[in-house]
Amino acid sequence: MFRKLSKIFYGGDYNPDQWDEEIWEEDIKLMKILRVNAVTLPVFSWAKLQPSEDKFDFSWLDKVINLLSKNNIDIIMATPTAAQPPWMSKKYPEMLVTDIKGNKHKHGRRVNFCPNNSDYRRLSRLIAEKMAERYKDLPNLIMWHINNEYGTYCYCDNCAKEFRIWLKERYGSLEELNKRWYTNFWGHTYYNWEEIEVPSYLTELAPSWIGKKEMTIFQSMVIDYSRFMSDSILDCFRNEAEVIKKYTPDIPITTNFMGSHKPLNYFKWAKYIDVISWDNYPTNNLPISSAAMRHDLMRGLKGGQPFFLMEQASNQVNWEPQNALKRPGVVRLLSYQAVAHGGDSVLFFQWRQSRGACEKFHSAMIPHAGHLNTRTGRELIKLGEELEKLGGKIVGSRIKSKVAMMIDWENWWALECSTGPNEDLKYLNQLEKYYRAFYDLNISVDIINPSYDLSGYDIIVAPVLYMVKEDAVKSIESFVKDGGTFITTFLSGMVDENDLIILGGYPGAFRKILGLWVEEIDALYSDMSNTIVIKEKIPEMIKKEYECRLICDVIHTEGAKTLAVFGKDYYKGYPSLTENTYGKGKAVYVATDPEDSFIKDLIRHYCNEKAINSFIKPCRGVEITQRIKGDKTFTFILNHNNEKITLTLPEGMYSNLLTGEVVSGRIIIQPREVYILENLQI
Amino acid sequence: MFRKLSKIFYGGDYNPDQWDEEIWEEDIKLMKILRVNAVTLPVFSWAKLQPSEDKFDFSWLDKVINLLSKNNIDIIMATPTAAQPPWMSKKYPEMLVTDIKGNKHKHGRRVNFCPNNSDYRRLSRLIAEKMAERYKDLPNLIMWHINNEYGTYCYCDNCAKEFRIWLKERYGSLEELNKRWYTNFWGHTYYNWEEIEVPSYLTELAPSWIGKKEMTIFQSMVIDYSRFMSDSILDCFRNEAEVIKKYTPDIPITTNFMGSHKPLNYFKWAKYIDVISWDNYPTNNLPISSAAMRHDLMRGLKGGQPFFLMEQASNQVNWEPQNALKRPGVVRLLSYQAVAHGGDSVLFFQWRQSRGACEKFHSAMIPHAGHLNTRTGRELIKLGEELEKLGGKIVGSRIKSKVAMMIDWENWWALECSTGPNEDLKYLNQLEKYYRAFYDLNISVDIINPSYDLSGYDIIVAPVLYMVKEDAVKSIESFVKDGGTFITTFLSGMVDENDLIILGGYPGAFRKILGLWVEEIDALYSDMSNTIVIKEKIPEMIKKEYECRLICDVIHTEGAKTLAVFGKDYYKGYPSLTENTYGKGKAVYVATDPEDSFIKDLIRHYCNEKAINSFIKPCRGVEITQRIKGDKTFTFILNHNNEKITLTLPEGMYSNLLTGEVVSGRIIIQPREVYILENLQI
Amino acid sequence: MFRKLSKIFYGGDYNPDQWDEEIWEEDIKLMKILRVNAVTLPVFSWAKLQPSEDKFDFSWLDKVINLLSKNNIDIIMATPTAAQPPWMSKKYPEMLVTDIKGNKHKHGRRVNFCPNNSDYRRLSRLIAEKMAERYKDLPNLIMWHINNEYGTYCYCDNCAKEFRIWLKERYGSLEELNKRWYTNFWGHTYYNWEEIEVPSYLTELAPSWIGKKEMTIFQSMVIDYSRFMSDSILDCFRNEAEVIKKYTPDIPITTNFMGSHKPLNYFKWAKYIDVISWDNYPTNNLPISSAAMRHDLMRGLKGGQPFFLMEQASNQVNWEPQNALKRPGVVRLLSYQAVAHGGDSVLFFQWRQSRGACEKFHSAMIPHAGHLNTRTGRELIKLGEELEKLGGKIVGSRIKSKVAMMIDWENWWALECSTGPNEDLKYLNQLEKYYRAFYDLNISVDIINPSYDLSGYDIIVAPVLYMVKEDAVKSIESFVKDGGTFITTFLSGMVDENDLIILGGYPGAFRKILGLWVEEIDALYSDMSNTIVIKEKIPEMIKKEYECRLICDVIHTEGAKTLAVFGKDYYKGYPSLTENTYGKGKAVYVATDPEDSFIKDLIRHYCNEKAINSFIKPCRGVEITQRIKGDKTFTFILNHNNEKITLTLPEGMYSNLLTGEVVSGRIIIQPREVYILENLQI
Repeated sequence: MFRKLSKIFYGGDYNPDQWDEEIWEEDIKLMKILRVNAVTLPVFSWAKLQPSEDKFDFSWLDKVINLLSKNNIDIIMATPTAAQPPWMSKKYPEMLVTDIKGNKHKHGRRVNFCPNNSDYRRLSRLIAEKMAERYKDLPNLIMWHINNEYGTYCYCDNCAKEFRIWLKERYGSLEELNKRWYTNFWGHTYYNWEEIEVPSYLTELAPSWIGKKEMTIFQSMVIDYSRFMSDSILDCFRNEAEVIKKYTPDIPITTNFMGSHKPLNYFKWAKYIDVISWDNYPTNNLPISSAAMRHDLMRGLKGGQPFFLMEQASNQVNWEPQNALKRPGVVRLLSYQAVAHGGDSVLFFQWRQSRGACEKFHSAMIPHAGHLNTRTGRELIKLGEELEKLGGKIVGSRIKSKVAMMIDWENWWALECSTGPNEDLKYLNQLEKYYRAFYDLNISVDIINPSYDLSGYDIIVAPVLYMVKEDAVKSIESFVKDGGTFITTFLSGMVDENDLIILGGYPGAFRKILGLWVEEIDALYSDMSNTIVIKEKIPEMIKKEYECRLICDVIHTEGAKTLAVFGKDYYKGYPSLTENTYGKGKAVYVATDPEDSFIKDLIRHYCNEKAINSFIKPCRGVEITQRIKGDKTFTFILNHNNEKITLTLPEGMYSNLLTGEVVSGRIIIQPREVYILENLQI
Repeated sequence: MFRKLSKIFYGGDYNPDQWDEEIWEEDIKLMKILRVNAVTLPVFSWAKLQPSEDKFDFSWLDKVINLLSKNNIDIIMATPTAAQPPWMSKKYPEMLVTDIKGNKHKHGRRVNFCPNNSDYRRLSRLIAEKMAERYKDLPNLIMWHINNEYGTYCYCDNCAKEFRIWLKERYGSLEELNKRWYTNFWGHTYYNWEEIEVPSYLTELAPSWIGKKEMTIFQSMVIDYSRFMSDSILDCFRNEAEVIKKYTPDIPITTNFMGSHKPLNYFKWAKYIDVISWDNYPTNNLPISSAAMRHDLMRGLKGGQPFFLMEQASNQVNWEPQNALKRPGVVRLLSYQAVAHGGDSVLFFQWRQSRGACEKFHSAMIPHAGHLNTRTGRELIKLGEELEKLGGKIVGSRIKSKVAMMIDWENWWALECSTGPNEDLKYLNQLEKYYRAFYDLNISVDIINPSYDLSGYDIIVAPVLYMVKEDAVKSIESFVKDGGTFITTFLSGMVDENDLIILGGYPGAFRKILGLWVEEIDALYSDMSNTIVIKEKIPEMIKKEYECRLICDVIHTEGAKTLAVFGKDYYKGYPSLTENTYGKGKAVYVATDPEDSFIKDLIRHYCNEKAINSFIKPCRGVEITQRIKGDKTFTFILNHNNEKITLTLPEGMYSNLLTGEVVSGRIIIQPREVYILENLQI
Repeated sequence: MFRKLSKIFYGGDYNPDQWDEEIWEEDIKLMKILRVNAVTLPVFSWAKLQPSEDKFDFSWLDKVINLLSKNNIDIIMATPTAAQPPWMSKKYPEMLVTDIKGNKHKHGRRVNFCPNNSDYRRLSRLIAEKMAERYKDLPNLIMWHINNEYGTYCYCDNCAKEFRIWLKERYGSLEELNKRWYTNFWGHTYYNWEEIEVPSYLTELAPSWIGKKEMTIFQSMVIDYSRFMSDSILDCFRNEAEVIKKYTPDIPITTNFMGSHKPLNYFKWAKYIDVISWDNYPTNNLPISSAAMRHDLMRGLKGGQPFFLMEQASNQVNWEPQNALKRPGVVRLLSYQAVAHGGDSVLFFQWRQSRGACEKFHSAMIPHAGHLNTRTGRELIKLGEELEKLGGKIVGSRIKSKVAMMIDWENWWALECSTGPNEDLKYLNQLEKYYRAFYDLNISVDIINPSYDLSGYDIIVAPVLYMVKEDAVKSIESFVKDGGTFITTFLSGMVDENDLIILGGYPGAFRKILGLWVEEIDALYSDMSNTIVIKEKIPEMIKKEYECRLICDVIHTEGAKTLAVFGKDYYKGYPSLTENTYGKGKAVYVATDPEDSFIKDLIRHYCNEKAINSFIKPCRGVEITQRIKGDKTFTFILNHNNEKITLTLPEGMYSNLLTGEVVSGRIIIQPREVYILENLQI
């Protein structure tokens, strides 16, 4: 459907309107030095493009676009609707957000619009249409980029009104809603739709009176409000996308995601987006796997389709408590990490570092010094040259995984708005722990929604899949029956889509497949731990005892085999790890939150069982992925270490696409160096 | 006046409206298995009972009541007024609370009504009357339970209006109020009642600019607002109680208290309540004495009259940061602890664990599994059998104490809204430290208000009795003159009921009786300590030096004997513990916040002096109390330890009421086991 | 212009209206015992003086003043405008503050008026005029004291209106404002003045989503709002001062400052104030240098003119988390510290300790005990006798410094509202570190604004002078060219007065004079450090390596000499300390945040180079300053230690003004003792 994207796009957000016109020519000159081949603009220029409701001024943008076009730089055209002009906020004050505390905001910041405001909808569609109409025939227009980093929830009266309509549609009747929301609890039975308020600090949310977590009284209402808000904001996107498609049906449309961004259900959004793109800002104090997991999530949103790395920082950011510099080689390494995980672009925020406002300390491709004779400048030049050399070779190639990890936004919302059993439990932490085990083994993981097709996978991991829908349960059952290995944990299978407990004994939806009953769920105080004592001989489990924390289930097996037990407390000797044979497959239950090494050993065990291996023997700090296109396999080897490492390649000859060298056997990889190997046919 | 309560009530909050009717029969079946003999309902069913202002629907409740009655289950009838229906909030928005930040709330949570709202008063009285009228002749109606866990303060304009009326009544004139509130400070002199605002974040409260504590500018206003709010909420209770009494003058009325709940002056409330009842939710990380003290407080509210344990959890709760399971035997042990301290019921929140909303992770008598074949189920069955066997034997028996500890809500409010001298000072902490000393010695303590009759006691302990009224001072003076021992601490006797310093030298009201003058009050930084060095030979003080923290007074004795001095700083050698002979008694002053062992040794010393002994030699983790009825003494021995212990009973033969065994001499008590011994006449 | 102030004023804030008239005579009696010669009143008596808009009542004040006058006690006459009467708040609710969250306040606290409210302006001027008219001829009226501790910002609509007017005046056109505020960032381009909102939590401020610091989106707007608010509040002061001057042109006017109080640009205020006065409340856990620096700042505000110590506490305060007592001798020592740094008064808050309200735990000259037979009482009596003996000898004398430290409020605002690079960076911390180095060496420092005349100094220190204006840059350049030593640090010289980066390479404004280019600015995580490795032989640098934290610049010298390098990370070997010869002088750059000993050694080095020496060899805990008047030099020696110390005086004979003794050679100074030495001519 779309024009072929035929190279790795290299460039970034370009905000020429922050600068005098004189500097634009200088920009182009520097872009050419860097081999920049694409820029995104004009992300925040609504006020400049539309000085008043009836006045538009595209002249300056035309000039910039001409300059870019003349210089063969492709354009990702952004609608500027993430920040409405001050005049618009003044004229339509209802457009502004009401926050969770009930405060109506005034003009300020960005993404400060009520997603259900009709004037916002009308005016954002209008500017999008004006742009589409004007620029539809640009030969270097490669993509539309709608808005920027969507995600602000609103709690205004108009949203309340729309919420009630949304609920009416979802539930049909108040009887049904009362039942699903469990409103007889605390006397909340509704007799009229108008009685429903949005869940805010003025209604159903309250700061916890003991712990750190907020108390939510009606989980189901809060989860529905997240669904509704995610949908409302998606409607803003679709509202613009729709009008743009009328003019440029063949140009792909994106909006820049933020990785694991809780407010928006990206899996639902993905259906309406042509190319997933996202902004990757890993900080120096995060494990490398953290960005890897988010890349895989982005790739997973549309079933493996390559994504765009829309933003990253060339050096430090401004919003960390301490904004550390990226160390030498890191910006290049992280750029290739994106490609290694399925990215087809290496784009930055932003082109030229702002002189003022809150991002003046956020690095850019061109720093305040104004030239490229800097450490980062030299790294970017090298990167530009390499990407140009790689051309379109890798673009469009896919990653094949035998393992998938389930992530579900609605589960995330549900899990973390529950009061109890343990406020220290965070969904992302659990996901990252299991992801990291595969990552450290260099085993590729697809990230999928529970509703996705499971065929083709050997192992499915679903940590803390607390809320689960019936079709997903069925699909998991089939998967196991057919021989797959399903690994899940404590708290899984407990509630339906309204956060209502599946009665009769935990883990509700998964009781049969897991072959066990969880009688009690213990929450450990933060300074407490228990141990997992291995009972069955599993060669990969190299310790006899592992530490665990957070949650310990008290389990009775109902067919499952006990692989390990707890080592302490009154449930000492009760199962902490079980495996149930179900059909031709296995369902594995981890009844607590183990230390990392346990998960790593466990994962190694089940991968071995399925003969899922890494390309070469895993080596600490070395990341390896493979992208495949037709009969070509591209192997990425990234040395994240500060020291050089020696690896032995599997038999065969390889071409290192970054250098043109042919390599084989033992290779030495310098600190923070990257290899992209193509198997040579011999 | 009331029908005799002739057994230990066993059961809990029953919310059948959260469940389909089909399940009600199952409920009864399970209640019979458990020997449940009483349930509380319908606590949160206002919306179900009154779908609109002119429509009432008792049909479903009638059905439930019939079922219960038919099965000989007694009923504690709750008015559902803790949560007004959504339609009511919508129709009368002024009914909703305005919080301390000045934000008007919308419908949500519970106890979200302005206590001074006339529509709330009218409608809550109406539903109470409807229920009283309808159910007045129920033979199994044993008690009324008004509302639920009262305690939300409101700061709305209507409350401000009522506050001014309350003040006018209290002070008569603005001149008097200006004087008592010390309003010439910071130019707050009022010339018109309308000028008085309620103390909120918009007026006289401010987050501390340095420490963690809130700053209150006008303590007297804040204390009066607490008095007013406690009274206003009490008026809500009395408003319903009054109308109910018209129909069932002989049925006792209660409302469920929350132990040490700061917003409401329970001593004042107690006058209007027939039977004190309360909700006990001790968490695993609290000392056992913590619940014991609150039981004693509840018993003390009405001068020793047995109280009802209205709610406890059968297992974990949902509102802790980490909600740990109750360990095996603990729910039974804590149930008996309540009885041991004067409780005549063992009731739970709630009968059946909710499927949804914020309490879905709060345990209940029947868990989500739906049956009793669980660890907790078996413990509850055993408990039910035992309580049935005990019958009415213990019911109505009393505890006799030679020691009383003073607690005063107004002092609590005053102490903790003062700015200075040390924000780490918490009233409850101080109370618990002194209480724990007696508790560890197995010496029974009555908890009384300073205004209560002191005759009959040998020792009165009054930690940090900062605000003290004249009649209390006189009563304490008489007590000591007549031979009693009065033990108090730093900061006591300082201010009158308007938080105005009693001039002329600290400790103001107690200077004469204590025989000393406190020249200076030092506050220690959190990482600082001093020592208490013992000067006089006191056999019970087994260490030469004890550590102390928080506050150190600089004292000049005026007649008192110096028993110990400070060991450090420029007031080294100044008294830290004094004893003054006054009339036939003694007044003891602890001038700092000592480590626990000091208080324990001190208390042992004064108990020995008065020959106040425990039943048997105290043993760590073993709690012993005695209830007396006529000539019968029931001795409770609770082993809170995880290990068995061996005790030697005083001479005599005893019947263990839980087993029927006759025991004497050395006995072995298993971990978490309970003995209830009746002395056998030989 | 003013009447000569001929003695050290001793006394304090006198609030007789908090007490019954009977006590006033007692007050006078005690004042005479203490040798009190001046009191400040009536600071908070607006409501008492003006019971309604058309009614004034000065009768009680007249009586008090008569009593004081009869007893030869001088009067610092305060306008009571820091707390408007409740009736005024009620009548003119717009007078009340709207806070940064957008909440309109009601009557309460103090300094709770909108500085731009016209009714406040009119009525505060009126009461000031009434007082000036009435008391203008009082012979013992020595000073006017307007308001009290100004500093509350308001964010109301009226302030927004006035802000726009202020901006119009500052920038002339919206084009200019858009450019200076960099509003094309995030689409904030204004087309109408009305579109500008004040920067609050409802607009451009947001709690940080990761760190602890607030995020400000438009730094320039926030800085301008601070400028505007500081000016608006100054206008309140000037509004009263103006009308007072009409009546008493020869009486000096002051308002009590709060040392390093961020909201008000005291350097700008100083121009409109006759005598600087301030309130000094150092807590026990601060280094002694902390108060010293603030004294020097106060002295510096008007170019060295002696200031008034308007308030201090005789003992503990009430607003600390833990309010420790002042240790013996400390109140006297701190009083002399004020004089030693250029203070001409020793005044206290307050005369008599309040009975009620939030300052009841704040010490006063007369405690609740009501007499002076206390430790503090005896210390104050001694102090009063000494000050009486000193008479006017020292009054008006000046301090001569060869070193100046630059402090700039606008830089403070700018630095701390930036997002990035390191939220742990606090301006005051940096200033205190450098100040302390000189303090420990007993080298006197003047504190100046960058715009002040630099001639006469040998060394200028300007830590983190991030925002710098062109004239200051020129003045610093001339200073160095002419032979001065200029010492500055990381982040200096970066932005212009609108927080716009000076492009082309850091440190922008100072690049030439420092002879270096900062390519990158690394921010260190809180648990990280680097080292400074000394490369050049500098005898005063006694360690080879010093630790550093917070920020590390990556530097390329452009003429500067590298004195030290970093010891770790990829910029190991890059300069961490440089010195550039520029004209006849030197410009020194500290590229990181070093441990204290580094700064001390560095400062010693440059002081030695300039032959700037202390009076005698520095001794830990001993503070030494000199005040000069005509040919007389007064040397203050303060022993802050808890132990006695031995010093050897420079050759000569000295008279100790506190004792009359003549001393020379070796002297022993007792713990917390003070010497004030006058050189004797021999």
